[in-house]
Amino acid sequence: MEIHGGNIYKIKRESGKEVLDFSSNINPLGIPESFKKELVENIENLEKYPDIDYYELRESIAKYNNLSLENIIVGNGATEILFLYMREVKGDRVLIISPTFAEYERGARIAGKKIDFFPLGDKFELNFKELEDKIKDYDIFVICNPNNPTGNFIELKNFRNFIKKIEELEKNLFIDESFIEFIKNWRERSIVNLKSKNIFILRALTKYFALPGVRLGYGISFEKSILEKMENNREPWSVNGIAEIAGKVILEDKEYIEKTNEWIEEERKYIYNELKKIDNLEVYPTEVNFILIKLLSLKSDELRERMIRYGILIRDCSNFKYLDDRYIRVAIKDREKNRKLLECLEKVVK
Amino acid sequence: MEIHGGNIYKIKRESGKEVLDFSSNINPLGIPESFKKELVENIENLEKYPDIDYYELRESIAKYNNLSLENIIVGNGATEILFLYMREVKGDRVLIISPTFAEYERGARIAGKKIDFFPLGDKFELNFKELEDKIKDYDIFVICNPNNPTGNFIELKNFRNFIKKIEELEKNLFIDESFIEFIKNWRERSIVNLKSKNIFILRALTKYFALPGVRLGYGISFEKSILEKMENNREPWSVNGIAEIAGKVILEDKEYIEKTNEWIEEERKYIYNELKKIDNLEVYPTEVNFILIKLLSLKSDELRERMIRYGILIRDCSNFKYLDDRYIRVAIKDREKNRKLLECLEKVVK
Repeated sequence: MEIHGGNIYKIKRESGKEVLDFSSNINPLGIPESFKKELVENIENLEKYPDIDYYELRESIAKYNNLSLENIIVGNGATEILFLYMREVKGDRVLIISPTFAEYERGARIAGKKIDFFPLGDKFELNFKELEDKIKDYDIFVICNPNNPTGNFIELKNFRNFIKKIEELEKNLFIDESFIEFIKNWRERSIVNLKSKNIFILRALTKYFALPGVRLGYGISFEKSILEKMENNREPWSVNGIAEIAGKVILEDKEYIEKTNEWIEEERKYIYNELKKIDNLEVYPTEVNFILIKLLSLKSDELRERMIRYGILIRDCSNFKYLDDRYIRVAIKDREKNRKLLECLEKVVK
Repeated sequence: MEIHGGNIYKIKRESGKEVLDFSSNINPLGIPESFKKELVENIENLEKYPDIDYYELRESIAKYNNLSLENIIVGNGATEILFLYMREVKGDRVLIISPTFAEYERGARIAGKKIDFFPLGDKFELNFKELEDKIKDYDIFVICNPNNPTGNFIELKNFRNFIKKIEELEKNLFIDESFIEFIKNWRERSIVNLKSKNIFILRALTKYFALPGVRLGYGISFEKSILEKMENNREPWSVNGIAEIAGKVILEDKEYIEKTNEWIEEERKYIYNELKKIDNLEVYPTEVNFILIKLLSLKSDELRERMIRYGILIRDCSNFKYLDDRYIRVAIKDREKNRKLLECLEKVVK
């Protein structure tokens, strides 16, 4: 599959080269020590099937969000929840605010939905006025917030009028908050605070906590019926036992969370300011751990190829709806790696 | 969910009791040391997304089966493969040879298929003559072999005529071989040897290798189009990074495989013979690591409750199609645990 961030495995198979992966947006602090310790001590747990009800895991996630266990559904990565939601949600007509993550479209298509796209405006901001005019024409609205790949975040207050109409017309709003923990004071800024029955919220645990290999995502809903339909029509034990172990400890790992917040605040400023100094790049502001860049001097696939020669993989964004062959996305990593990226980028775009 | 083997988590939540779980059929030798070592050494791999093509993992599985990588699809446990297959296979009418594992029916139902059941005959043997008369009425035939919960195994030679007709009429045969490694000389007895385009084979890696928490199953097919459809219509990265690590080492762990084969051969004979000595039980012969038993003196739910009081959980089989409230299933464990089971069973059925 080529639609995603870089396939480092394929590059290695074909070229024999290890690359520094700036195409996937994972916390560079790496696996939390609390998880490593817990896994090594409880490795024998893998001899059992996971708890088919994921009681303790859902309880940990509920606590992390000040919610109740009944509001939580866990999944084999956020993608399982997304695909399940698309299969089970009422209504056929989906509107996806774009450019955004490609799997919403794939999940909706596989579920047999009719799909349209709604373009973000200037600086990739969402024009709610125009969107509100479309509410009656669709059943399901998909918004990634913070948005991948643009890095924008829509504040709660800007949503209010739109959501009022969504509720009045009994429509469904699907909000992907997979990257929300990377923004400042995310708890008070999350759409979860509205506790609306018409909003389904998607979260990933494996970007912020650097565990994409573990596959753990979850959904939040205040509407019992959609969660029940999703649970009743899925395969059993889809979340693995390692994810169960991870969920118990990482959400309470205050040290890791603090360090991550310090890192992202510092490095986001640093890399943004340094990127701005490089000629021939238009750099978009970001609230999260990746940055969208428009190339003024060469095409995204050319840049990608040249960067690979320097051992760096970036995300060519030309296949995102409403973006073209001038856009790339880079993850924010630690200072040393960010410096390397900046150096190579400067050489290549000159 | 209550349709499966015992929910040890629920029992613990409700009674505070740890139980010895004879309701799920896992190799009592436990997690292979080779896997533990590999996981601890490669734990940092979990910081990356799995290989979206699962190239190395599929290669290991192909090698284990003397097949080529193109014949293999990997899944988040065997159940993901089963559900995907049911969604993507052509045809609407499914015939499930029963009693058998309940998820075939669930997977087919969720995929919107029409489902019928075909009863196993005397001693739970399959009457192929009668089955052949039904071929024209169905599109998909589901057989679990070795069969859960009966423990029967159908030999290759008995299949031949049926499969000839399946091929002539272009029907689909789905064979679940999740427990095949527990039978003697399984490689030469597997239906994979026929390399038929009309047969899809399901396998689990986590029963024989005692890793149900890791979630790893796979499918084998000689028909490219079904594998492509399944790959194209699933969510990405459904197999986790620990399963990738496991797949690389356990299939080549000769010591573990040898020990397992010695254990199962010895304990199967032992527990079968000892069970036969207990009054009021009808014990069915088995080729695998679990045994179906008919109770002559009390009902299965009564026995289950009484056994829990002794700290042992067995599988009440009353909810299997064509079985009634007289049937139970027990796993085969190590000698010490098997003895404990035998002692308690004897007390309870008297």
